[in-house]
Amino acid sequence: VSPVGRRAAPPRNAVEILATGDELVRGRGSDTNFAALARALGEEGFAVRGGRLVGDDLDDLVAALRAAAARARVVVMSGGLGPTRDDLTREALARLAGAPLVEDAPCLRRLRALWRRRGLAMPPSNAVQALLPRGAVALRNRVGSAPGILLGLRGGARVFALPGPPRELLPMLEAEVLPRLRRLPGRVPSRTLHAGVFGMFESALGERLADLMDRDAAVKVGTAVKDGVITVSVHGEGPAARRAPAVHREVLARLGPAVFAADRSGLPEAALAALRRARATCAFAESCTGGLAAARLTEVPGASAALLGGAVTYADAEKERALGVPRALLRVHGAVSGPVAEAMASGIRERTGATLAVSVTGVAGPDGGSARKPVGLVWFGMAGPGGVRTVERRFTGDRAFVRALAANTALDLLRRAAEALRAGAPAG
Amino acid sequence: VSPVGRRAAPPRNAVEILATGDELVRGRGSDTNFAALARALGEEGFAVRGGRLVGDDLDDLVAALRAAAARARVVVMSGGLGPTRDDLTREALARLAGAPLVEDAPCLRRLRALWRRRGLAMPPSNAVQALLPRGAVALRNRVGSAPGILLGLRGGARVFALPGPPRELLPMLEAEVLPRLRRLPGRVPSRTLHAGVFGMFESALGERLADLMDRDAAVKVGTAVKDGVITVSVHGEGPAARRAPAVHREVLARLGPAVFAADRSGLPEAALAALRRARATCAFAESCTGGLAAARLTEVPGASAALLGGAVTYADAEKERALGVPRALLRVHGAVSGPVAEAMASGIRERTGATLAVSVTGVAGPDGGSARKPVGLVWFGMAGPGGVRTVERRFTGDRAFVRALAANTALDLLRRAAEALRAGAPAG
Repeated sequence: VSPVGRRAAPPRNAVEILATGDELVRGRGSDTNFAALARALGEEGFAVRGGRLVGDDLDDLVAALRAAAARARVVVMSGGLGPTRDDLTREALARLAGAPLVEDAPCLRRLRALWRRRGLAMPPSNAVQALLPRGAVALRNRVGSAPGILLGLRGGARVFALPGPPRELLPMLEAEVLPRLRRLPGRVPSRTLHAGVFGMFESALGERLADLMDRDAAVKVGTAVKDGVITVSVHGEGPAARRAPAVHREVLARLGPAVFAADRSGLPEAALAALRRARATCAFAESCTGGLAAARLTEVPGASAALLGGAVTYADAEKERALGVPRALLRVHGAVSGPVAEAMASGIRERTGATLAVSVTGVAGPDGGSARKPVGLVWFGMAGPGGVRTVERRFTGDRAFVRALAANTALDLLRRAAEALRAGAPAG
Repeated sequence: VSPVGRRAAPPRNAVEILATGDELVRGRGSDTNFAALARALGEEGFAVRGGRLVGDDLDDLVAALRAAAARARVVVMSGGLGPTRDDLTREALARLAGAPLVEDAPCLRRLRALWRRRGLAMPPSNAVQALLPRGAVALRNRVGSAPGILLGLRGGARVFALPGPPRELLPMLEAEVLPRLRRLPGRVPSRTLHAGVFGMFESALGERLADLMDRDAAVKVGTAVKDGVITVSVHGEGPAARRAPAVHREVLARLGPAVFAADRSGLPEAALAALRRARATCAFAESCTGGLAAARLTEVPGASAALLGGAVTYADAEKERALGVPRALLRVHGAVSGPVAEAMASGIRERTGATLAVSVTGVAGPDGGSARKPVGLVWFGMAGPGGVRTVERRFTGDRAFVRALAANTALDLLRRAAEALRAGAPAG
């Protein structure tokens, strides 16, 4: 009994997404899997109809699976594959298929091997993770212990059940789910291209791309913004798939140097790539970001090719000791000021010998603001072979947002300085 | 036609959540409203059954609303109230109620006043935001332009429709939705308590709490895990609400020192609180985490009360320069080793004068591992008034996970050292 009674058979490329977990319905964690799955499936030419989140309740889970399988040929679900008693996905799938749960010998061997590698004895309760509904296929999990499950239903729908933790789900989506989906009939050819943009308001970008973002255009141009980083997506389906690259080129041309990536790489990757191209090393001196800018750059494998190190100087005494900021400068201008940002950047550059050094000092909030130096005021120093310059920004938002924007701004300053260095302009 | 055919009338405190927006089903942005709504509603004694995300499709939206209203007395939805053609919530609600859309004069006046305050003429298309299904009630929006809508359905269900942007939705939830919900009959008393746990596998925790986690227990005990942090929740409804605190106390007693918080605070908050209670200052020396441990601690407002600063020493030369790690030690043992972790912790402690200092050096991957020092091997140094000790951990996972776990381990070492200091034991 489908709740969408008016509809005939679902389109052949329709997908439904499902997530289970009491932590979700109790609001103990935001689900990020839905967005990641929707994006990946959309880019493969599937149309995500919708998704449902349910708690760890067997009846609710079975009902949600049944409804999803009535709406779409493919159902991708996450969660409920752990070893504890509130992990009900195996049981729900067995009930949905009317099949018993049976132990999968290869899965059990892999589980035991995983625990051996951890140097531990496998707790007996973990053996339930090797149970599959009879006739189902185990999906290999190379990161965690829970295998995924692929279950084909009598009506023709396929259910892919994946573990909830994104670091397990995302690699399994790539390695186990998408290759199988690509072999399904009914997929519509599609092409999605991206651009990463920093240093521009979303509304200004929208004005520059207004005609391309027309809702009725065959090639869809959309934006998503997070912590100041705008991701532009260019998507074409069917005949429009072939026109997506030309629209993408036009987007890049119109946005110019604000574009840090012509694909989906992040700002840290772009900064590191620019540093490597310029054969430059770098260092950070951070106050209000407390190490976040350096932490973001070191998210990227191979960061050691450019990053020497940095100082987190939260206390003013540390700004003096670790960076040589003169006490008088701190007293006269205050820690959040252009002169101190300049001294911090020069100080860490001299001490580490890095080609480029960036400093951050600001008022992250919620307290510590004043009329002259409000919450959100952040000063940056950018030191290079050509000297030091400072940049002032005023961000609006809470502590986490101000810090995230400040770290991103530091990375973008580094990226632009490295690009300028390579182009022969004096950095700084 | 409800897809949950086996169920009778929904519990009187059941709530369903719904979100609409093409950006959601295309994965261009993560929905954070669901978690915020679920938490707020749960704490008010409502039981969130589940939620659904649908695109901007009128049929899908009406079907989702109808299914939600069959499952729960209260439906809270977000999105689709803007002025553009893909904003379909008003029309969907009108269709659901079988009522025409009529212009609400007070809403129209407020809209015009808002645009006047912005110093702009209201675009004619925005007048649609003053349309409501006949019989519906407008919910005041003090932040943005779209009013919310409260619609009572013949079956007794109430639908609260709110705008999608969190900065509009959250204040409206507080001011317009929760006060009305508190007046509804049938609200079930409920109590949810939490515990934060670190330093224990989820399966080991599950075994220790097996009897309490029984699915048929009146008080529900559940777990969620992220980056090694296990959040235990204890939830009781109706008569079981009064028994939740006793179960919570039992959980805390069984898990002992692995519990870092008896509420929903995170590890950084717990570490900072322990440092403040011990009147201790702290410093970090980070290699593979690249500043992440310090960045996590400084997420907490007031971190400056304890944190002096730290060094990000990615290059070995920086470990020598900024921390005084002897070159011979690096040559003989390698950067990822107990002796180097020890020298890093002592070095930053001496230089900053902090009471407690923690160091991190490891192989985050994906490259750089060897048979003797595999990816995931991380050494920690913990220096305090009583000396230095080192801790070795072997984490399994990708670079981001190894770094996140290492940063959390550093914070937990700091938390435990501060607690020991306060208890009079020599730290380190």
